[in-house]
Amino acid sequence: MRDAYHEELDSIGEGLVDMARLVGSAIGRATTAILDSDLKLAESVIEGDKKIDDLQHDLEARAIALLARQQPVATDLRIVVTSLRMSADLERSGDLAQHVAKLARLRFPERAVPHDLHATILEMGQLAQRLMAKTAEVIVTKDVDLAMQLEQDDDAIDLLHRALFQHLMDDRWKHGIETAVDVTLLGRYYERYADHAVAVAKRVVYLVTGEHADELQPEIQPVTGAEGA
Amino acid sequence: MRDAYHEELDSIGEGLVDMARLVGSAIGRATTAILDSDLKLAESVIEGDKKIDDLQHDLEARAIALLARQQPVATDLRIVVTSLRMSADLERSGDLAQHVAKLARLRFPERAVPHDLHATILEMGQLAQRLMAKTAEVIVTKDVDLAMQLEQDDDAIDLLHRALFQHLMDDRWKHGIETAVDVTLLGRYYERYADHAVAVAKRVVYLVTGEHADELQPEIQPVTGAEGA
Repeated sequence: MRDAYHEELDSIGEGLVDMARLVGSAIGRATTAILDSDLKLAESVIEGDKKIDDLQHDLEARAIALLARQQPVATDLRIVVTSLRMSADLERSGDLAQHVAKLARLRFPERAVPHDLHATILEMGQLAQRLMAKTAEVIVTKDVDLAMQLEQDDDAIDLLHRALFQHLMDDRWKHGIETAVDVTLLGRYYERYADHAVAVAKRVVYLVTGEHADELQPEIQPVTGAEGA
Repeated sequence: MRDAYHEELDSIGEGLVDMARLVGSAIGRATTAILDSDLKLAESVIEGDKKIDDLQHDLEARAIALLARQQPVATDLRIVVTSLRMSADLERSGDLAQHVAKLARLRFPERAVPHDLHATILEMGQLAQRLMAKTAEVIVTKDVDLAMQLEQDDDAIDLLHRALFQHLMDDRWKHGIETAVDVTLLGRYYERYADHAVAVAKRVVYLVTGEHADELQPEIQPVTGAEGA
């Protein structure tokens, strides 16, 4: 019985890794879609989000069944409850990747991102994808040091986000309001995506070290203008 | 034993109602703060968010303790797990109210919202606060019909959100990029706040009717431009 139980517990962990991989791929493809104005790619991300949602529902159902059947306590209980939260974060990251793809579709055949912001958005997209790849690795390895490194990647995204706003607020901005609105939302999508990835990694730290979630929940602030928030 | 148990279960429900009330008050005060450029009020919202976070942590700790000690099954298990999710939604709504307040603080003594959008933001704020008040009522009464009504309020917020974007995209927009960025983010904060309120109410529906969360999770889409997304 205990063996079947730990198999179930492991399969929940595997489900989280599958979700993280799909969500990581989604943000990478969404970024390419918006930079290249690639409608087919955008649509594949939008449709692919259903699979991420399905994985989450499946994972939740298994976690709840496991709670009911096995009634875990102590560490095992903490793992199951925390897994539920991680799956919610990953599902939400998938939504944000989908938002990027939907913006690409909305503006097609135009490009939502002007040339002078291409490099910034590309870098935000790459960092976000890398963050999620590391998060998947943290789930597999439970490597606390790697999880702590994610903070730095997240800081890098925040810096890019600020640079984006500085560029927007610059008097020489010449792309009009619609593009400003698009870029504002895009910046927010990447920032929130990264926040969720970091939150997942930190929940692994919580499971390993037992540190309270208080210190682990990233402070999420609006970044408007160069002066931050 | 069973009695103490149901008392604990009830106290979790009461904790959710307390959170919903604080979060409802927060969005109302944040809206006033941003419309009046009232720094003191903004700061009270920002500081008040800590209390909401504390309530959530307290509620989570009690829910997990209850899972460990009482090992509920079936409906009771579903209530506890769903309560954890509801508390996460409410906590996030509190963050969004705080974001509005932080924007008010950032722009103080200027006003972030131009005169011609004052009425729209006021209405979004009022609707959001009313949504959360109804959500609190749904938690108390488990009134499925009332929960279903929330959809309409949410639709009303989405309409206002679209109107906001239409106004932004209008060629006659004369408030510059910074204000456009602020208004874009504000619109998003209210929309997300409302989504979380509706999500909480729908989780109550799920608990009462057992309907699958698939149909209950609101579809969240970026609304950029009059054409929607």
